[in-house]
Amino acid sequence: MSEKLEQLKTLLAEVADLEHAQALLGWDQQTYMPQGANESRGNQLATLGKISHQKFTADEIGKLLGDLEKEYEGADPDSDDLRLLKVTRHNYDQATRVPSDFVAEFAVVTSKAFEGWMEAREKSDFSIFQPHLEKVVELNQRYVTFFPPADHPYDVLLDQFERGMKTAEVKAIFEALRPQQVELLKAIAEKPPVDDSFLHVEYDEQKMWDFSEVIATKFGYDWERGRQDKSAHPFTTNFSINDVRITTRFEEDNPTVMLFSTMHEAGHGLYELGSKQAYERTPLAGGASLAVHESQSRMWENLVGRSLPFWEYFYPEFQKLFPEQVGKVDLETFYKGINKVEPSLIRVNADEATYNMHIMLRLELEIGMVEGAIKVKDLPEIWNAKMDDYLGVVPPNDAKGVLQDVHWSGGMMGYFSTYALGNLISAQLWEKINADIPDLSDQFRKGEFSALLDWLRKKIHVHGTKYEPQELVQRVTGSKIESAAYVRYLNQKYSEIYGL
Amino acid sequence: MSEKLEQLKTLLAEVADLEHAQALLGWDQQTYMPQGANESRGNQLATLGKISHQKFTADEIGKLLGDLEKEYEGADPDSDDLRLLKVTRHNYDQATRVPSDFVAEFAVVTSKAFEGWMEAREKSDFSIFQPHLEKVVELNQRYVTFFPPADHPYDVLLDQFERGMKTAEVKAIFEALRPQQVELLKAIAEKPPVDDSFLHVEYDEQKMWDFSEVIATKFGYDWERGRQDKSAHPFTTNFSINDVRITTRFEEDNPTVMLFSTMHEAGHGLYELGSKQAYERTPLAGGASLAVHESQSRMWENLVGRSLPFWEYFYPEFQKLFPEQVGKVDLETFYKGINKVEPSLIRVNADEATYNMHIMLRLELEIGMVEGAIKVKDLPEIWNAKMDDYLGVVPPNDAKGVLQDVHWSGGMMGYFSTYALGNLISAQLWEKINADIPDLSDQFRKGEFSALLDWLRKKIHVHGTKYEPQELVQRVTGSKIESAAYVRYLNQKYSEIYGL
Repeated sequence: MSEKLEQLKTLLAEVADLEHAQALLGWDQQTYMPQGANESRGNQLATLGKISHQKFTADEIGKLLGDLEKEYEGADPDSDDLRLLKVTRHNYDQATRVPSDFVAEFAVVTSKAFEGWMEAREKSDFSIFQPHLEKVVELNQRYVTFFPPADHPYDVLLDQFERGMKTAEVKAIFEALRPQQVELLKAIAEKPPVDDSFLHVEYDEQKMWDFSEVIATKFGYDWERGRQDKSAHPFTTNFSINDVRITTRFEEDNPTVMLFSTMHEAGHGLYELGSKQAYERTPLAGGASLAVHESQSRMWENLVGRSLPFWEYFYPEFQKLFPEQVGKVDLETFYKGINKVEPSLIRVNADEATYNMHIMLRLELEIGMVEGAIKVKDLPEIWNAKMDDYLGVVPPNDAKGVLQDVHWSGGMMGYFSTYALGNLISAQLWEKINADIPDLSDQFRKGEFSALLDWLRKKIHVHGTKYEPQELVQRVTGSKIESAAYVRYLNQKYSEIYGL
Repeated sequence: MSEKLEQLKTLLAEVADLEHAQALLGWDQQTYMPQGANESRGNQLATLGKISHQKFTADEIGKLLGDLEKEYEGADPDSDDLRLLKVTRHNYDQATRVPSDFVAEFAVVTSKAFEGWMEAREKSDFSIFQPHLEKVVELNQRYVTFFPPADHPYDVLLDQFERGMKTAEVKAIFEALRPQQVELLKAIAEKPPVDDSFLHVEYDEQKMWDFSEVIATKFGYDWERGRQDKSAHPFTTNFSINDVRITTRFEEDNPTVMLFSTMHEAGHGLYELGSKQAYERTPLAGGASLAVHESQSRMWENLVGRSLPFWEYFYPEFQKLFPEQVGKVDLETFYKGINKVEPSLIRVNADEATYNMHIMLRLELEIGMVEGAIKVKDLPEIWNAKMDDYLGVVPPNDAKGVLQDVHWSGGMMGYFSTYALGNLISAQLWEKINADIPDLSDQFRKGEFSALLDWLRKKIHVHGTKYEPQELVQRVTGSKIESAAYVRYLNQKYSEIYGL
């Protein structure tokens, strides 16, 4: 290896160590940290954040990068070394183009915005959050100006979460998707609702926890390189390719949610665990983008975990564990129950058929705000009108409407669409997987998931961040991100369930 | 505050944040980290260790310290500001006098020495560890040369753990103590042994855990600023004055050990939790020395937790929890059982009456090795002879003798005596406390420990590292560290138990 590349890797390894230490501070904060530590933990996160930023944006790294880019001109465009330089360049530019004054201002504004959002949500009063959100929008607009002109200013924001993705692409994908989803929802609405009352009774938390780990184990989650803990909001984090942790939570009035939460996070976890070991302590470890990450979590949660073959295998065990709750509920009823479609107000509780509608709404609002076409003060009104339009439900108050998500209060714009894109990618991959492994459903019926995991490992996981999301999807499925596969998936699944 | 002092404090706060992040990496490693993360965790600890060392030893800190020492000449010697400069100077000199080449060599040697010790202990073969220990001794001798000449080279080693303590002082203390302990042990040996068979039966681990937390709560341990977890070797660590965590362990064949382990660590924890809040993120937070720290843990474990008044309050509850095990064991029998004296081979299992003998043996060997008077190869023989001489027991093999402790394999010399000094200090403080709070025993009988904690807070904890250990003990008790109080305590306690 080139001596300079060795030097660069050594510097990047230290940055990775610092970032992983920050991730541990964050994991601990959400799992075990005593309350009294709040302030000190904030200081520690700030200090480590500052130092890792300084180390990563050091002139030395810029110089090495520049020299190496020349040295590797004409190298195999698919080689790990060249890709490492590309990913590092992308991250380096993002980190260095933004002046540190701006970063500091952003931190102050979003810290206050978060508090404002908390209060606003508690009081269900958007006007409390409004001035904060106005500043957040203004900061995001200013952020865009630090980068070379793009086709659309929102491209720059998207690129933070979805490398290389364009606003025009996302818009086109969603515009094709929307009418199809609307049509499906209308058809479902005309049918009698399915029964899921048996999901909303008391279940023992410990038994549910143990069963969730049985499932994750079957999926191939490696407990020697990971663990599951409890947190208020489930998440996946990692401090190494070999230390990837998931969390889950128990909801009193919806106890089986714990299972799907574990499956979802295990999907993220399996992705992180699957990076090539040679990528350890380099920016090539991890996931290609938020959307590709979400395609993995959604696949294990929904395409696997809410499928009939999956429950053909697991349901007898589940019934044995909870005879009072589902002993007399047959498999078909249970399967329909966990796939009930019901337009509702809250994104995080939305089912597969309605979820994307919540995202499209947010995307339109974000683009409008960034363009200046939508004024922040008009947000609640537009929100409610679009909810009525897309889902036929209207929030009774701001807390259950425009104030439900934390993202904007953290300054994040450009994030939401990755959730829906993840759904779409999962279905694209699914068609390809089923073509490559024709007996996949039969394997699930026997509790076998290793062929699926092996496929994902080889095609997706092992590559880490090497490919941009569109490039990766194209390589694996033969086409870019698009909605047709997801629409086919939804239509087939719900036609069977609702007899459309 | 002086502008330069403000600058220094800002720099020290960042160092503290980095050190606390390292401590969290260490806590996690011993509690929840999956095995697969071993290598990555080592890298993270090394990187953060390097960066915090670089930040702390930066010229900027040296310059500010020098300027501030001039600026504060003639300031109130008891002021926090001046003391902060003194503690920082002590730590700065320790960190900067040792060349980084030496630090690197030390890390390599001790890493191999640890592996060598593991293997040697497993095979019970000292000859495997011998070459490693020879290097460790040589490194310690070399370490001494980086510091100004001391009265005795071992002073420099002691000073790492016990600021300002002299070899001559420790020797004098132990020489006064040894004959008295020997005499007591002889007297006990002539009496029939006490029965503790009821301690070595099966107890439910969860119940023992819960009871251990009941005790810690009664002691005043603040669960809003701390928590208890399990680890193979119990320890206390902190990431802030307001985030101090303890661990405990369950031993199948000695289940009540969990209680005493929790009390011991809670003692350490209460000390750390008690630092003045203004010391947060400064080197003034923490304990004055290892010995003073041990005085706190030993006090709560032994002087409180193995006392009759303590169990007069807690024993009925304990009997209710474990009716099969101790339902028919009366309080006096139980009390004698948990205070059984029995010369034994292993330091960490030693009772109050024999513990210090193990320490004196180690101190003599360490001083001998550092002076060159004792050759490493002769260690097993000398060890066994001294064990016979001091305790009347001879190890059947090296694993149960000279190889039992991890300290030397980690390069640490000068550490052991702090354990015994802690015992001595605890008794000195105890006499003072009982003079100040005459009804202390009555309070314990009612489950009241707050007067004791308040006293410790005010006299010891709040000062953090402000005073050197000898200075602190002198301030609080009117005399330096000495053995008479501990001898009085032992004699009185065991005279009653054994009817001497």
